[in-house]
Order: sequence, then structure tokens, then C-alpha cells
Amino acid sequence: MVLNMGRFEYEYLDVPEALPEGFDPEEYVVATYYVSLPAGLDAHVVAQAVAVEQSTGTWTPVPKETPEIKRKHAARVIGVYEAPAYQWFLPKDVEERQYIIQVAFPILNLCGSQFPVLLATVAGNILAGGKVKLLDLAFPRKYLEGFKGAKFGIEGVRSILGVKDRPLINNMIKPCVYSPPDIGAELAYEVAAGGVDIIKDDELLADMELNKVEERVVKFMEAIDKANEEKGEKTLYTVNITDRPSRVLELADRVIELGGNALMVDAVPVGFETLRDLAEDPSINVPILAHLPDFTGAVYMSPEYGLSSHLIIGKFPRIAGADIVVYPAPYGKAMFLRENYIKIAKQLRYPLYHLKKVFPMPSGGIIPIHVPQLVFDLGPDIVIGAGGGIHAHPQGPRAGATAFRQAIDATMKGISLEEAAKEYKELDVALKTWKTTKIV
Amino acid sequence: MVLNMGRFEYEYLDVPEALPEGFDPEEYVVATYYVSLPAGLDAHVVAQAVAVEQSTGTWTPVPKETPEIKRKHAARVIGVYEAPAYQWFLPKDVEERQYIIQVAFPILNLCGSQFPVLLATVAGNILAGGKVKLLDLAFPRKYLEGFKGAKFGIEGVRSILGVKDRPLINNMIKPCVYSPPDIGAELAYEVAAGGVDIIKDDELLADMELNKVEERVVKFMEAIDKANEEKGEKTLYTVNITDRPSRVLELADRVIELGGNALMVDAVPVGFETLRDLAEDPSINVPILAHLPDFTGAVYMSPEYGLSSHLIIGKFPRIAGADIVVYPAPYGKAMFLRENYIKIAKQLRYPLYHLKKVFPMPSGGIIPIHVPQLVFDLGPDIVIGAGGGIHAHPQGPRAGATAFRQAIDATMKGISLEEAAKEYKELDVALKTWKTTKIV
Repeated sequence: MVLNMGRFEYEYLDVPEALPEGFDPEEYVVATYYVSLPAGLDAHVVAQAVAVEQSTGTWTPVPKETPEIKRKHAARVIGVYEAPAYQWFLPKDVEERQYIIQVAFPILNLCGSQFPVLLATVAGNILAGGKVKLLDLAFPRKYLEGFKGAKFGIEGVRSILGVKDRPLINNMIKPCVYSPPDIGAELAYEVAAGGVDIIKDDELLADMELNKVEERVVKFMEAIDKANEEKGEKTLYTVNITDRPSRVLELADRVIELGGNALMVDAVPVGFETLRDLAEDPSINVPILAHLPDFTGAVYMSPEYGLSSHLIIGKFPRIAGADIVVYPAPYGKAMFLRENYIKIAKQLRYPLYHLKKVFPMPSGGIIPIHVPQLVFDLGPDIVIGAGGGIHAHPQGPRAGATAFRQAIDATMKGISLEEAAKEYKELDVALKTWKTTKIV
Repeated sequence: MVLNMGRFEYEYLDVPEALPEGFDPEEYVVATYYVSLPAGLDAHVVAQAVAVEQSTGTWTPVPKETPEIKRKHAARVIGVYEAPAYQWFLPKDVEERQYIIQVAFPILNLCGSQFPVLLATVAGNILAGGKVKLLDLAFPRKYLEGFKGAKFGIEGVRSILGVKDRPLINNMIKPCVYSPPDIGAELAYEVAAGGVDIIKDDELLADMELNKVEERVVKFMEAIDKANEEKGEKTLYTVNITDRPSRVLELADRVIELGGNALMVDAVPVGFETLRDLAEDPSINVPILAHLPDFTGAVYMSPEYGLSSHLIIGKFPRIAGADIVVYPAPYGKAMFLRENYIKIAKQLRYPLYHLKKVFPMPSGGIIPIHVPQLVFDLGPDIVIGAGGGIHAHPQGPRAGATAFRQAIDATMKGISLEEAAKEYKELDVALKTWKTTKIV
């Protein structure tokens, strides 16, 4: 590793740095990075080189990168914070130093409010340049005003279902992938009748030859209608239309024509812009559930590379317009830190300009015993995702659904599940069957 | 971490495992993973649980996951290989064990030949389940036959340019982001006249308010036409149409109407399916350059998480239809292992059923001195990407382009650059100016 000092001439660096007050927050997106550097390097110099690389410049000054162009288009480093923050000496055994670095990118460069150019800019080549992880993004109002966000959000979905306060319960049909669709429709009837509010396809079941979306949505809606009449409640069915982007839009129209009442996509595989196309299309008049646990692990799992989970699982799908965001809960089969699962819920529900608050849906090996903890952590404005924890109930899927409703009722009344189980038989069986879903 | 042994009953596992010969290679995609596990766990059991999780099942058996459904839709573990491969005892200090695990996924589950369902399946929740990295995918012929691949490929691009054997030289305009477009058009004229074969926008400059694609393409094509007449050669201009997917297609049509002769997208930010929409659309009758260094670092940089670079930078863009794939070279400003840069070139050029061979374009801080090494590594069927190494030439961008052509000529003739520089003045200046572009 050779240090080419030509890069770091003073003139070259006079633009890409500012005090934290030295930029107009209405004109810049602020990106926060984790960076780890060999102890010999000056993080300020590296950060400025990166800011230049991700806006106007390259590894060497070029003649047309004029001061005027830099003034208009260059990114600026506005903070370099070391953790721990060495001051007057560096211990000899320190080989790498860790930093939080903030860079402000002009929204002028971002070609309007859109994910592709945003990602190429704030999560571009820079993330291949060493130990760098994008931790956060702060957007100015006028940038986010380019996104409409969710059509329904928490209030809208609650109003469709007629459920005011309590957590909603969602069931993913298991087996994940199956054929023909009748198998799922039969299960959908059972769990809807048992009390689930929302039924979703597994993220792995899309428009499969032996189980087409068109056939599935008709059969599921029939099953749900029948169940709704019996239970006197409503049920949404989020049919998985994950496919090539152009096909997603076709499938969405077709689902609505056929009477479907909700949609689902695997958000990262189809792309946030495709989710957004659905959400911002006025003719798509049904809520959208975005499944986030797939592929995103490739991006957030490493502590030193990629993007933080609260961006890719939280802020991005909210901006793109999801009404419900499925993501890993730390209590079941998934591996996820509790603080990050809470952070994601905040990304979805904290005030963010005009964007509606949307439902966090923690999921993955959830069983009734987890319900009080989920509500304690996140409050009642959640959708609880349960798959096997409903379908594998010893008394069948309907009882499995009912057990969750009983757990929710007890939790909302402040009664312990053990106490409630004296009265509620299905819950009692569930509690006796499962103490945990931890796998490893 | 609690082990729920209920998961691992024998009946549950009778389907999701097979010998390496125990599946029909025409009906399955084979995924190869790196996995690191705590020493106490049985990798075979975990692998099978994962295969089930990514196809029919969940953390617990469910009633409708019948043997018939498992036979049709379950994934199968076909290989669990430990590295190092402990046999008769496990040293006491081994806390984690590393494996290469191969899983065969039925193409029946993949809903035709498409990236979204493929990614949700082979790179789905599984990549959030611990230390797991997707290293490779092997596709059956009939699955890849659903993709058309590149329209032009190496042969097609060579035929447009009328350049038979030598490496092509591509220049990315620097500054990266600038306005108005005249600045770039002026530079384009210089470097085209100086001898570059292809000019590309920086990945950060898309359809920006102060530098719109429509204006840019007209001005660049004028500049190129003028240069072509002077030099008696052809030049392609790959204009960056990265944008929301629907807008990418509109911009592509508009560029072609306006006489543009090539296109460029940031492949991962727009999505592989959008790149594919361009490549498979018969009306898009120009080559497509795909920029891969942006965002992909978030996915491939960690040795224990994500996807390998040769998939996300190599096989995927080839399948999606890129004619030229820009990716990091290990000799300039980028940080990249040489073996992976070579591996990516193989992904782009080795036989792969009907799919055309396409150009690797190693890039990032490339200067003339790197040319013989690039050709030694990858042969002459490459595009050499140079930005600052052309624009910062002390005699100006035109001389910078000429210096690269001289380096290519010398290399093709088997003459050392030092020898050639005695005759070639621009090359001589370049060699004296830069010995390296390594930054850190």
C-alpha cells in the first residue's frame, strides 16, 4: 500500500470539508458511515478523498474539476469522530482506528428523488473501498417530498380492518412453497376463521406455474369471504406478486381486477422503485406488505461492511411506500439483535415529514408466548407475523390462530398468558407445546 | 441459544438431502455457500434445516407439508464439505468450523427465469441466518435459456468499432459530476480525437437537472462525430441513463431517437431486471455498458456474509445482458484481490450455453503503466477503463488518450513501455508522471 501524496494537496481539499454548520441542510443529504482505518492514516484526509470520489473527482485532480464545479457538486465531510477518541497519544498496540464519519451530498447531484442515483451516490464505490458501512441517512424535507410513501399506513390498514387498538395478527401460509393453490386456500379459511387479520403468502411463493397468482387470489378471497362471514371480522390477503418489475405491475392490476384486497412483494429482489411504483400508483387501492428479510442479510449482516439494517429494512421501505414491513424478530428462529429490531420499528413510526407511519411486522418463529414481549417492546401498533406457530398448533391451524388472538387479548388487558390460559383452551395448548423456537 | 430438537426428527429430514448424484441437474439450480458454525453443531442438520427453510418448510413441521409437496418443491442438500476436514477428532481449541455447502433448488419453485424469485430463494432469509456467504450458482441449460444475454457481446462491439484484436480503451469523463454538459462534450471531443474507443459518463452523473441526458447525448455525439472524422475511427458514447426503472426505458428510447450509439446503467441500483429489459428489447439496438462497482461492495466485501463478487459483478450482469461490465481492477485506486478480478473475467467470457461472451472492463485508477499487466492477466479481449489517467495527463486529455493507445500498441507488439516511450512522446510523459495510483 503506497501513499500517493499528490492526491492530498491542499488546494484539492479546500472544498470537500466543512464544519457541521457549514452546509445548507435543505440542500444536502447527510450520510453517516462507520469506517475502520489502519492507524497510520489520517481519517480526515481519507474522508475528504472519499467525498470527492463520490461526487466530482477521482484519484487525481483533473483540469475541468474547477472550483465552481466543486462548489456546486462536491460532497463535503462535515464530521470525523473517532471511537474511542484518542487525543494526546496513540497506544502502540492500536493497529486500526474506528470512526464515524458524516458526509453531506448535494441533492442537486441526485437527479430528483429516486433510489438508483441515491444508492450509487451514498452507497456507491465507496462501500467497496475498505471497511466502510453506511449507518444512516438524513434527508431534507424537499428531497423526501418527492416520495409519496404509504397510501394507507397504520391508520389506513386499521380502518380497513375495523381494528382500533390491538396488535394485528398475520399468518404466513406454511408450507412456504406448495401446489396446487387449494392447499393454501383451505389453510387460509381455517386461519381466517380462527381470527387472523392478515394472511400472507410466503416470500418464496410467487407466480409459480403450478400455483399461479390469478388462481390463488380467487381461491383465497373465496376462503376469506366465507371465514369473514363466520367470524364477523375482516381479513386481508397479501398475495405475493414478486416477479420481474414490469410483470409486478401487471400482476397487481390483475389481482385488483380479481377482487384481491392486498399485495405483497419481496422488496429488495423486486427493487424499492418497483415497490414505490405500486405504492404511488393511484389505481393500486389496496395496502402493500413488503417482505424485507430476504436478500437484506447479504447487506446488513457484517458489522464492518454494507448498510445498516434500519436503513435497508426500515427507512427505505417506508419511503418507498410499504404499509407493512416484515422483518426479523429477535425471539424466534431469526438471529437479530433486539436493539436493531426496536430501531427498525422507530424508522417506520417516528415522525418523518409527510410520510405516513407504517406497521412493523416482526416475524420468524413467533409463537404465542412471544406476544407480551413484542407488545412490551414495540407497543400495540404492530403486526405480529406467525407461520409455523399457527399451522403446527396441535389442534390445527384454526386453533393456532385463535391462540394468538387470545394471547393478544390477554396482553391488551394486562393479564399474564398463564392466567389467561386457564380460560383459553387453544392458548393453553400452545403454551404447553412451545416454550421456545430458538433453533441454534 | 437453545437447541429445539423437535426440529430435527428423522421423518422431517428424509427429503431435504441427497447424494451429489441424487437429483436431476436439469431440474435444479445448485447453490454453493460458505458457512461457519459453532463447533457444537452438526452442519448436516443445519444445512438441511436451511434447505427446508428456503423451500417448503419452517422451524417446525406443519401438517400440509406433505411428502408429495416435499418431493416436488423441497430443496436438497447435496454436499457438506468441511475445510479443514476433521475426521477422527476435533481439537479442543476449535470454536467454529468452516464448511462449503451445496444445495439444489428445484427450478419449478423459481417462477421462470427471473432474478427476483431466484434471489429470494438462493439469497433469501438464509443470508441473514448467521455466517453464510453465497459463493456460486450453477444453472441448468433450460433455466438460462429463459435469458437472452447480451445482444452484441465482444464480437458485436468489436464489429461496430471495426477493431479486431486489440484491447479497447474507454474513458470515463472526469469530473464525475459537473454541469453544464458542454464541459463533458468538450472533453469527449478531446479524448475521442486522442484515440479512445468508448467514452462513458461517470456512474454518478445520470439525468441531472443541470446536465440532462437528452442534452448531453446530442452534444457528445456531435463532439464524437467531429473527432471520428479527424481520426478515421469510430467511438461509442455510453450515456448514463440510471434512473427509476420505468424512466430508464423511456430515456433509452429517447437516447436512440437522438442518435446515441450506446447506453450505460448502474446495474445494481437500477436492478438486473431493468438491465435485462434494455438488453432483451429488440428496439434497443446499441451496446449496453453496466457499471458494477457501485453498491456491490455492500454485498461482496465481507468474507463471511453476502454474495461473492464473481456472481454479483460477473455472472449476473452477463445473464442480464450487459455487453461491457465495469468492475474494479486490483492495480489502481480500487481494493480488490487479483484472483477475484481474474475470476470475474472468466465469468464474462467462459462458455455459458447460448450466452454471448462479453467484455470485462477493469477500472479504477488505471494509468498507462498498467496496460501490459492487464493484458497479461486477461488477454486482449478487454476494455480498459481510464478516467483520471487520461484527463490528468500533463499535456491534456487528448494526449492522455493517445498515451493509452500507445501503451496498447506497444503491448500488442510485445514491446516494453519503456522501449516504446522512446518513440511515443505522450506515453513517455505519462510514464514519467505516474508510477502508481495506489492511494492507501
